[in-house]
Amino acid sequence: METVSVRLPAIFERYRDEVDQALKKALVHEEAGPYDMLRYHMGWVNENGTHISAPGGKAIRPSLCLLACEAVGGSWRSALSAATALELVHNFSLIHDDIQDGDKERRHRPTVWYLWGEERALTAGTTLGIIGNLALLQYDHNASPEKILKASHSLSGAIMEMIEGQCLDITYEERMDITVADYLTMISKKTGALMECALHLGALFGTEDIKTIECLSRYGRRLGLVFQIKDDILGTWGKEGHTGKPIAADIRRRKKTLPVVYVLNVVKGSDRERLYDLYTRETLSEGDVEKVLIILDNWKAREYCQKMAEEHCSQAMDELKSAKLSSSAKRDLKEVMAFLLEREH
Amino acid sequence: METVSVRLPAIFERYRDEVDQALKKALVHEEAGPYDMLRYHMGWVNENGTHISAPGGKAIRPSLCLLACEAVGGSWRSALSAATALELVHNFSLIHDDIQDGDKERRHRPTVWYLWGEERALTAGTTLGIIGNLALLQYDHNASPEKILKASHSLSGAIMEMIEGQCLDITYEERMDITVADYLTMISKKTGALMECALHLGALFGTEDIKTIECLSRYGRRLGLVFQIKDDILGTWGKEGHTGKPIAADIRRRKKTLPVVYVLNVVKGSDRERLYDLYTRETLSEGDVEKVLIILDNWKAREYCQKMAEEHCSQAMDELKSAKLSSSAKRDLKEVMAFLLEREH
Repeated sequence: METVSVRLPAIFERYRDEVDQALKKALVHEEAGPYDMLRYHMGWVNENGTHISAPGGKAIRPSLCLLACEAVGGSWRSALSAATALELVHNFSLIHDDIQDGDKERRHRPTVWYLWGEERALTAGTTLGIIGNLALLQYDHNASPEKILKASHSLSGAIMEMIEGQCLDITYEERMDITVADYLTMISKKTGALMECALHLGALFGTEDIKTIECLSRYGRRLGLVFQIKDDILGTWGKEGHTGKPIAADIRRRKKTLPVVYVLNVVKGSDRERLYDLYTRETLSEGDVEKVLIILDNWKAREYCQKMAEEHCSQAMDELKSAKLSSSAKRDLKEVMAFLLEREH
Repeated sequence: METVSVRLPAIFERYRDEVDQALKKALVHEEAGPYDMLRYHMGWVNENGTHISAPGGKAIRPSLCLLACEAVGGSWRSALSAATALELVHNFSLIHDDIQDGDKERRHRPTVWYLWGEERALTAGTTLGIIGNLALLQYDHNASPEKILKASHSLSGAIMEMIEGQCLDITYEERMDITVADYLTMISKKTGALMECALHLGALFGTEDIKTIECLSRYGRRLGLVFQIKDDILGTWGKEGHTGKPIAADIRRRKKTLPVVYVLNVVKGSDRERLYDLYTRETLSEGDVEKVLIILDNWKAREYCQKMAEEHCSQAMDELKSAKLSSSAKRDLKEVMAFLLEREH
């Protein structure tokens, strides 16, 4: 399938201002400490603390959370604390990811560790995770303490799984025997867990219907897989201007992304051997990267990945069949899924 | 005051087995991930995962938490989740501290980052913080959801403050204008916040009397100051066999510990200039370390620190005056304070 230029679904715009405000409120802090770094990371100030408006993230998790709340018949503002918490936790993982991957740029700006050093970035990231948890515990919505506890438990569990996924991702870099099933386990944890949590928390604060909450949670997990597979496609073939990362960045780092795992597992013969050889070298030259891309293209790895993403999309939509949702809610959720499948950044 | 060989107060033994069991239960996990590293760090397995019984930590925070619960008239088991959470969170901070300080040994064993690398240690440490939060959210005690939420809020707040303190500690390393007041602000956050939280949570799960909970919290904060000042004394003059760290480790790293801050602020003349000069060098030779120790001794820095610790001890005991405590509880809390003042490791 040919990708086309796609914009964020309109549904995401609905919540943007209030989410932004809630995020800014969560990071207001007078004292010295990691807050300047965090506000820098969020795109609100430059490295000297001067206000700017750099492009922030897509805020996919909070938008999904609030959409889920509305979709199940709730008032989306009752999930605003949860949405805020999710975006903070997601950004905590980005700051730590950048350290672990040695990435010097994110969203076309220098990363936190690159400006302030690994030590401070590490601390700043960890703080952001805690601030996320605190945001969820705020009493400014009218949920019962039982529900807030349940939500906090769900968020902590998702963070745990996300970290387990990051651990697997790191160990996979050193291993050459990763199967497609191993890969799916890893991304389900690394990316799926927090996406599931986003839908789970939104639905939890919007309805008492357990079956519907569970359906949306499973939809969220699938959506996480679609998101990550698409991320792998963009990390391999994405245009630099769109992704904010150098082209073929994942290959340069010899990440076990889906296209590579696919060729290593499915293909027999000289192309597989060449890819194996390239992926076990200490460093890759520009020519090596080009060779990897040619091998992936020989075996239509991009089409394979896009097809797998589409399959998970379709399974995600199936999950919604037994959820109690209005038809407009189902349409919104379908639109989100289509966006994640076709996005170019 | 001459330090004497002191053992952990008997009161700490009372809870040890159940705390150990609860900690082990919190870190039971079949899946791959950071759990082996965490069990290694806790002293339960060696680096290959084989069971051993290395000396663990002193478990001061959980013991204080449970003691506080009993002291206010509660049943200590109702604070066991909180105690477990506190020890896990404390150990999360130790794993991150070891990375930040580049320490290769803790409790006479190689540190997690030294064995598994910084990336994995970072992830393992962060996980431990989340597991701590999850432990607190468990429903296995009979506290109300409101109380558990309050406790979770308190713990997250303490972690935030602890991290802010670590940030200050790092920035202080590069600054030569730290006053004794700056130092006290830093250690109050770095060490005092979690100690306060330990007493706070214990009291919270043991009584409804807000005034008593507040008194014990303030006692805990003071106790944290005593603990850290004593830590500075041990990090400067402690015997290697006792502390598990090389002698004068804090001087080698040119940490702004209380003895150094004291001499830099209070002393005028050539000794201060020499210390300033030594502390702004890139590295310190063995001879330089010796010179720093001589300067500190010239100005009786050790006596100054011990006296300040004693003053905070006495203020801590004053905090207990308006708390509703049995005389045996007060005796126990006094014994703990005396131990922290006189400990040699």
